[in-house]
Amino acid sequence: MKESMNVDPQDKLPLRIVIIGGVAGGASAATRARRCNADAEITILEKGPVVSFANCGLPYHLGGEIKERAQLLVATPELFWNRFKIRVRTGHKVTKIDRNAKTVTGRTEAGQEFKVPYDKLILATGSQPVTPEFARLQAENVFQLWTLDDMDRIIEYLKKRPCKKATVIGAGFVGLEVVEQLAQQDIAVTLVEKLPQVLNPLDPEMAKLIELELKKHQVRVIKNVSVEALLSSNGRVTAVKLDSKESIASELVVVGAGVRPRTELATDAGIEVGSTGGVIVNEYGQTADPDVYAVGDMTEVMHGQLGRRIRVPLAGPANRAGRLAGQHAVHGASIEMGAVQGTSIVRVFGLAAGATGINEKQCRLENRDHRAAIIQAPHHASYFPGAKNLTLKLIYEVGTRRVLGAQAIGAEGVDKRLDVIATLLHFGGTVDDLATLDLAYAPPFGSAKDPIHMAAFVAQNDLAFAPELLAYDAELEGYQVVDVRTAAEIEKLPLPGAIHIPVDDFPERWTELDAGKPTVVVCHSAKRAHIAACLLQGKGFANVKNLTGGMSIRELKEDSP
Amino acid sequence: MKESMNVDPQDKLPLRIVIIGGVAGGASAATRARRCNADAEITILEKGPVVSFANCGLPYHLGGEIKERAQLLVATPELFWNRFKIRVRTGHKVTKIDRNAKTVTGRTEAGQEFKVPYDKLILATGSQPVTPEFARLQAENVFQLWTLDDMDRIIEYLKKRPCKKATVIGAGFVGLEVVEQLAQQDIAVTLVEKLPQVLNPLDPEMAKLIELELKKHQVRVIKNVSVEALLSSNGRVTAVKLDSKESIASELVVVGAGVRPRTELATDAGIEVGSTGGVIVNEYGQTADPDVYAVGDMTEVMHGQLGRRIRVPLAGPANRAGRLAGQHAVHGASIEMGAVQGTSIVRVFGLAAGATGINEKQCRLENRDHRAAIIQAPHHASYFPGAKNLTLKLIYEVGTRRVLGAQAIGAEGVDKRLDVIATLLHFGGTVDDLATLDLAYAPPFGSAKDPIHMAAFVAQNDLAFAPELLAYDAELEGYQVVDVRTAAEIEKLPLPGAIHIPVDDFPERWTELDAGKPTVVVCHSAKRAHIAACLLQGKGFANVKNLTGGMSIRELKEDSP
Repeated sequence: MKESMNVDPQDKLPLRIVIIGGVAGGASAATRARRCNADAEITILEKGPVVSFANCGLPYHLGGEIKERAQLLVATPELFWNRFKIRVRTGHKVTKIDRNAKTVTGRTEAGQEFKVPYDKLILATGSQPVTPEFARLQAENVFQLWTLDDMDRIIEYLKKRPCKKATVIGAGFVGLEVVEQLAQQDIAVTLVEKLPQVLNPLDPEMAKLIELELKKHQVRVIKNVSVEALLSSNGRVTAVKLDSKESIASELVVVGAGVRPRTELATDAGIEVGSTGGVIVNEYGQTADPDVYAVGDMTEVMHGQLGRRIRVPLAGPANRAGRLAGQHAVHGASIEMGAVQGTSIVRVFGLAAGATGINEKQCRLENRDHRAAIIQAPHHASYFPGAKNLTLKLIYEVGTRRVLGAQAIGAEGVDKRLDVIATLLHFGGTVDDLATLDLAYAPPFGSAKDPIHMAAFVAQNDLAFAPELLAYDAELEGYQVVDVRTAAEIEKLPLPGAIHIPVDDFPERWTELDAGKPTVVVCHSAKRAHIAACLLQGKGFANVKNLTGGMSIRELKEDSP
Repeated sequence: MKESMNVDPQDKLPLRIVIIGGVAGGASAATRARRCNADAEITILEKGPVVSFANCGLPYHLGGEIKERAQLLVATPELFWNRFKIRVRTGHKVTKIDRNAKTVTGRTEAGQEFKVPYDKLILATGSQPVTPEFARLQAENVFQLWTLDDMDRIIEYLKKRPCKKATVIGAGFVGLEVVEQLAQQDIAVTLVEKLPQVLNPLDPEMAKLIELELKKHQVRVIKNVSVEALLSSNGRVTAVKLDSKESIASELVVVGAGVRPRTELATDAGIEVGSTGGVIVNEYGQTADPDVYAVGDMTEVMHGQLGRRIRVPLAGPANRAGRLAGQHAVHGASIEMGAVQGTSIVRVFGLAAGATGINEKQCRLENRDHRAAIIQAPHHASYFPGAKNLTLKLIYEVGTRRVLGAQAIGAEGVDKRLDVIATLLHFGGTVDDLATLDLAYAPPFGSAKDPIHMAAFVAQNDLAFAPELLAYDAELEGYQVVDVRTAAEIEKLPLPGAIHIPVDDFPERWTELDAGKPTVVVCHSAKRAHIAACLLQGKGFANVKNLTGGMSIRELKEDSP
């Protein structure tokens, strides 16, 4: 380290800030620290070959959608030095933190040992992909996708050996992105997932919409099954053997089995890790050692709806945490990180799917007294050309009326609805807040009653028993089931055992029903059923419910055709 | 009214709800009332020929973007009757409300008088276009665009007399939509606006971006000028004469001079109108007479950022108010309407432009101690194909740090950012809330640091004097002006009198500057200038500012080329 920069006018030594890791929040921390202190000596030690790259973009270069590899290189060491006088040391693997001596030591790729002193240390070591037992074999066609290097190796392999059949193991965000990008290269892709659904942040019926999209694009989806082994021959995997005993012939295997935080360096130095495996930090990214910060995937963050710290290995929170830690390391003050809502989104072929807050599965685990509404609505005014269907699930708490979470799927406008609800979650808003939001409306952009309002109205009605919603997958046995769809709709998607009274005949024909029986009204999307159910309530039916989401969601039940 | 529907089982007379006007919230009120009361006699009296139509869609059928006229007809009287047993009387003009007798009387189009009793009356008479003095002439080619009939007449006229030159007077939402739709039919359009800018909800520099978009599409924009007269010959206008003495040859004139609430019926019945001209209502849409409600364009609504009731003649609030009034008329209870934020959006050729909260012009009128930040950022990850530039202006209050409003313009993602900020305004959020929102990120949808976060960061820096922003149009005389752009950028758009030190040379060359002088740093979008300004502050420069928005916004100053 020959470069020298700042000679302090008062001969005071400049603050020495050392950042371990560039990608997962480290670069944000470094540039923010520089903005807050012109004289600090700021050093990023990065074990990899590049200081900062767009890891979220990797799948898209793999598939050629991002054309140039160089586009993924967000910032170079030269830029950091010229513009910020931040020293970047790539290929520098830190092996030890000495908190007493306030030094970090390690070894360069060339084998040289180094030792760097710090006044403030910021850990941004990120996370690494989990490698399941079955994937620990020597085979040139088994990959994970977490680094530029991973990506390069897949691309090189595909160039060398164009392949027709690939298997992706794990249907999380990266897995789904890889599936899409491989399929767009005319590779027949099988997606294997050990859970009973893809995209675990969503509830199963919403995930089903993504499964249908995958199937529509010729992806074979196998769920609820574990990989027993990868069968190989001559150093190449030939098939993926499942515990269902089926074997999937595969010329390429990509494993997306989740990530785990890289905390060894921290724990070796006596820095505490929480029950979820992430480093424990305060609202400013500070560990119990006030001179050591940790940010990004390796840490726990406060989850707004769970009310406790969990790991959320996503780029947004990592970047924001890095920025705050960089400032706090200099000034000893910054705004608080605040809670995350676990907001996430992924594109899968023609659909976007995402979630914010908590889902129903989590509500059950947490014993939250929750209810859920599912609506379908066009993403902008239905009469304006190009309106696309949007499915929105809203989860809310009985009693407090607070929104707990939401999930959305559709071709357009999914990100907008998630962001609005994530903003509402930030403030602990209720379904009543949601119903009164003043959102931007013109025909190309929304509706006078946005899907968000519609979902809120449905939730308000549900909470007021006006009428109550019935879960999309509820057992209908014991109910007088009334189907208010048209005959044509029923022919396409029958609901056996239901009494059929089209909604437009309902004001005349409701008298055909038995007011003494528990009744559920059903239509395609639950809008017409609401009208009919209200009528029955008004006519004295004591127990009337509306099947949420209607047949369009009920048909997504796992056991349906 | 021969139809009879509900015979109350207890021989109690059904509640009679009469709604005057279908379009502006009336239909929403009617259907909600029905859902809340199966037996009520609900009647909509509508003076026009249709009970409900998509008025926001009119310009788009005019231009052929919405192909079928029928798509604009949201609901027919038949649907209302069959599905809801709501009586719709079109061509029924109410002329008098007798609040003592609880009746409304009027005359049908056929000249027949009618009288209808009510228990609860809901006024939804909407607004009507202002017709300026100059437009009050008999001419077959002067139009306004507010009703289906208006639209039909323009379309018919254009069929009969294809025209090459049109003038649109008034650059509000409808005016701009009409300009776009006429221009797309190869008509040379001149847009005349009496204010010094188009799109008054925006501040002038933001509106300038829309003016440039209009010019790019060959629309001539003349601002700051009044129409003196329409010159006509043989019953047709031939030119628009301006007070600048210029005359614009015109074969078609569309006047969009704003709207005024239709309140005559209400005021004649002694119902009070507020200082802004709208009917005064409470949080449930109730007037001082508890049996008379008013909703939509004809009323005043609470504005969240102004803290007082004003008129907001937009479809969203009208629909929501109608829904609440319909429920309250039945139950005597509903959630509160809540405040509106004046959120609005319009598409102008390839751009969307919109606003929420209050703008700087309003802040000045209201004496709010405010500041403003303008940023430019790609609407999603810059490395992902298709990223479009988004300009976002954020206005916030000194002291409270509360966000007061925002304006956004861009090809993509404008509606999303406005909706997120409108949601934040609903909760009275601060720039710090904005900076910590957990928004949905994947490369096709956003950035790890969304434009919203970037704007919030800039605002935080400004409020912390780290460093302070200088207004985009500030007088630079007296400042040491430092331009940190590249030579190539400066050549394209010079800033005379500035000292040029490219940002990447800044850490070495800042010593060339005079620390004793008030200094402003300038770049293209204020990002690099922030880096340089931070350095100067850190080096002891006492008075350093960053020109907000940089040259990209400064060049939009009215007096610039």
